[in-house]
Amino acid sequence: MSKELTSRSEDYSQWYNDLIIKGSLADYSAVRGCMVIKPYGFALWENMRDQLDRMFKETGHQNAYFPLFVPKSLFEAEEKNAEGFAKECAVVTHYRLKTDPSSPGKLMVDPEAKLEEELVVRPTSEAIIWNTYKDWIQSYRDLPILINQWANVVRWEMRTRLFLRTAEFLWQEGHTAHASKEEAIEETEKMLEVYATFAEDFMALPVIRGIKTPGERFAGAEETYCIEALMQDGKALQAGTSHFLGQNFAKAFDVKFLSKENKQEYVWATSWGVSTRLIGALVMAHSDDSGLVLPPRIAPLQVVIVPIYKGEEQKTQIGEKADELIKKFKAAGIRVKYDDNENTRPGWKFAEYELKGVPVRIALGARDLGASVVEVARRDTKEKTSVPLEGIETYIINLLEEIQQNLYNRALKFREENTIEVDNWNEFVRLLDEKPGFLSAHWDGTAETEEAIKEKTKATIRCIPLHNKKEEGRCILTGRPSSQRVIFARAY
Amino acid sequence: MSKELTSRSEDYSQWYNDLIIKGSLADYSAVRGCMVIKPYGFALWENMRDQLDRMFKETGHQNAYFPLFVPKSLFEAEEKNAEGFAKECAVVTHYRLKTDPSSPGKLMVDPEAKLEEELVVRPTSEAIIWNTYKDWIQSYRDLPILINQWANVVRWEMRTRLFLRTAEFLWQEGHTAHASKEEAIEETEKMLEVYATFAEDFMALPVIRGIKTPGERFAGAEETYCIEALMQDGKALQAGTSHFLGQNFAKAFDVKFLSKENKQEYVWATSWGVSTRLIGALVMAHSDDSGLVLPPRIAPLQVVIVPIYKGEEQKTQIGEKADELIKKFKAAGIRVKYDDNENTRPGWKFAEYELKGVPVRIALGARDLGASVVEVARRDTKEKTSVPLEGIETYIINLLEEIQQNLYNRALKFREENTIEVDNWNEFVRLLDEKPGFLSAHWDGTAETEEAIKEKTKATIRCIPLHNKKEEGRCILTGRPSSQRVIFARAY
Repeated sequence: MSKELTSRSEDYSQWYNDLIIKGSLADYSAVRGCMVIKPYGFALWENMRDQLDRMFKETGHQNAYFPLFVPKSLFEAEEKNAEGFAKECAVVTHYRLKTDPSSPGKLMVDPEAKLEEELVVRPTSEAIIWNTYKDWIQSYRDLPILINQWANVVRWEMRTRLFLRTAEFLWQEGHTAHASKEEAIEETEKMLEVYATFAEDFMALPVIRGIKTPGERFAGAEETYCIEALMQDGKALQAGTSHFLGQNFAKAFDVKFLSKENKQEYVWATSWGVSTRLIGALVMAHSDDSGLVLPPRIAPLQVVIVPIYKGEEQKTQIGEKADELIKKFKAAGIRVKYDDNENTRPGWKFAEYELKGVPVRIALGARDLGASVVEVARRDTKEKTSVPLEGIETYIINLLEEIQQNLYNRALKFREENTIEVDNWNEFVRLLDEKPGFLSAHWDGTAETEEAIKEKTKATIRCIPLHNKKEEGRCILTGRPSSQRVIFARAY
Repeated sequence: MSKELTSRSEDYSQWYNDLIIKGSLADYSAVRGCMVIKPYGFALWENMRDQLDRMFKETGHQNAYFPLFVPKSLFEAEEKNAEGFAKECAVVTHYRLKTDPSSPGKLMVDPEAKLEEELVVRPTSEAIIWNTYKDWIQSYRDLPILINQWANVVRWEMRTRLFLRTAEFLWQEGHTAHASKEEAIEETEKMLEVYATFAEDFMALPVIRGIKTPGERFAGAEETYCIEALMQDGKALQAGTSHFLGQNFAKAFDVKFLSKENKQEYVWATSWGVSTRLIGALVMAHSDDSGLVLPPRIAPLQVVIVPIYKGEEQKTQIGEKADELIKKFKAAGIRVKYDDNENTRPGWKFAEYELKGVPVRIALGARDLGASVVEVARRDTKEKTSVPLEGIETYIINLLEEIQQNLYNRALKFREENTIEVDNWNEFVRLLDEKPGFLSAHWDGTAETEEAIKEKTKATIRCIPLHNKKEEGRCILTGRPSSQRVIFARAY
């Protein structure tokens, strides 16, 4: 298979697909809309997952596991939620296959093994979880419940793209229950901040924290908070959502508690999630025409060492030096690999690790060793430096931090350059085509206008930023009065 | 809810269910045969999973993720495998629900959203994975592939029991591809040993390593290796299996590679798995009439500190001392909790942590503190000791190790006392009823005899132990000649 990538300027979308496949993150599968996450992609996901998991636990959450299936009668209990997900859900109707009498060696659904009640493969777990919480909550002493679940979910999307939109995807879903509205809103905002911190500090991805318009809310939520990131092609990507669910699910599943004041009250709820979609965001935010560019803090491999030698003597010498380095690096907590595969040449390896986005490459050559230096190349800027072996682990630790920071700064600069205040409709339309990005514009606050703008331009309101500056203005489309700008963009 | 458990002697099966529910490991769900794994149970599973994951990675495996669904045409490709799982699989036939016109607020399967090809919810992933490996393997250079997946699977079992047999369960499934038969067998045996080591060193569960008879093999395997454990009621539990799959899946999915000798050859395969069923084994091997007994190495909590005081002054004093202890314990890597909940009394807490199987309980009382000692109670023997505060972290670390070892020794002693060589059919039948355990007996090697013994006694051949001693004898049922003993038991 050729490792050549389509360039971003040629075809951004093809570049993305090429990169996911050739960078060994994922592969297509035999199941419509489902992908295979390959070991390299999964190692990346593990690093992201483990860090998020630590942050969830630090904020008092525990993991649990709820069933994959939602019986239809539970699924339909919260009406808006059901309506939102019914159109695209996988439904289990039978529990057995049998030999097809008309076609030897083939199987068919056994009509006698029809389920009395259909089971929906969870597209999200509010229904099954709130049906369970009903049994767990009697009094205010049972609250709050702060539970997270790492799971697979299925949404039967018609158009799918690797990581960005797949029929099955991996995610985490937090589901919390509280005694008061204030506490639930506080939780919703706290988890949004956890997501924002994770995106910025670990994925090097600057995000705008905001709330969704009613039209873009999660089905069944009273308020949806989100973090929005800007991709290199000027399109937005929703990177995480945190929902204040009010008492909607408590009412749908009749979950009440005895308050301190001895009254029966409905419980307040939140839910929040991020998914493998984040990997798509990561790729589109940092990578380039040579391949992936991964932030050191979550990169599966942080450093690769490639030996360059001629003959057995040099090979042995360099191998010994490499062992030493590996030992030092591992002791310093650096994820490192020594690639002494003899079937491929150094140049091929350089290209391969560039494609895979390994932050730092060290070339270990016989001549350099004589001078007690090595050549260190960083993936983000492609700069090469000759570095003394003495104290190299400190140099590398600092370099990894510098790369992490540089990626963030670069992405932030890009976002700033591509966030534009617009006050004129024609300019708004022109920019979307010619210089797409975040367009900060006034909106009259109605669903009709939001919908009209979407139909005319394919741009949606990504969010109303949190702590938004109040500013008098006129709606970009209708000219009606508005008190604040919102963020428009075309989005993934 | 009463915390009273049914005793083991009264009703072992009820004791088990009580313990799972009241010990907060799991709960029943609204979905037939599926359970909810509660936070305490999931924390236990996380510790088990993380340790196994480390062992898989140390033996060169990587994680990946494959689709939840198996298209019917792939599912049926390996005939024996399909036959084995077709009778109990969940089948997705539709991808949408719609409003039920005859019943407002209700949903129904949309007949227009019928899938062209049904999707089976994976009961195991050989089919979907080998269909993928086909694209990944061209030459011997692509081998071996050493991949593991942590996933949920679904088998539509008719009779289910919490953890032991549920329609959906969590597990890991390793799927490896090799260039030679020898290498694949070596892998199969290596992973069996990983499981055995994990069971013995972390779960404190002695196991017999063996191979299954042809009748008990995994559907599609050439050889199934297993580890078998003995529960307190004398029934066996299969705790893990490792399968040598020969070239069956390579042939079914046409997966060939170009060998070093430049020949096209079919790839050799293994698969191996353990599941949340292990939690059932853990509970039934160690726990007692007061509750769970968990081995320290995998217990979610290793030490709980309960304060005993009167009045605010003592409370503050003890709180300060507890902070000190917690800091020391955490620094020593001990999983510890300080329970200063004022809504419950010390006696209630003692019972609660006994029920939850926390290995060590420390009572922190004002009088003891004056003497610079604390009362340490161990869960396994229920012994209490007064221990000086000076150097207590070392004492606790050693005690946790001692408890771990004691649990293993106790289980091993139990197994030894309940493994009996039998040479007489009447004795065999009597023992199964009166003193059930592992019965080591001669068998004539035929499937007919195996089946006849099962029908007469409900005992099955658990395994033919690895490195089994050769010994001339006569089949326990038929009297025909036999060259080795095998292990019989009634099993979960």
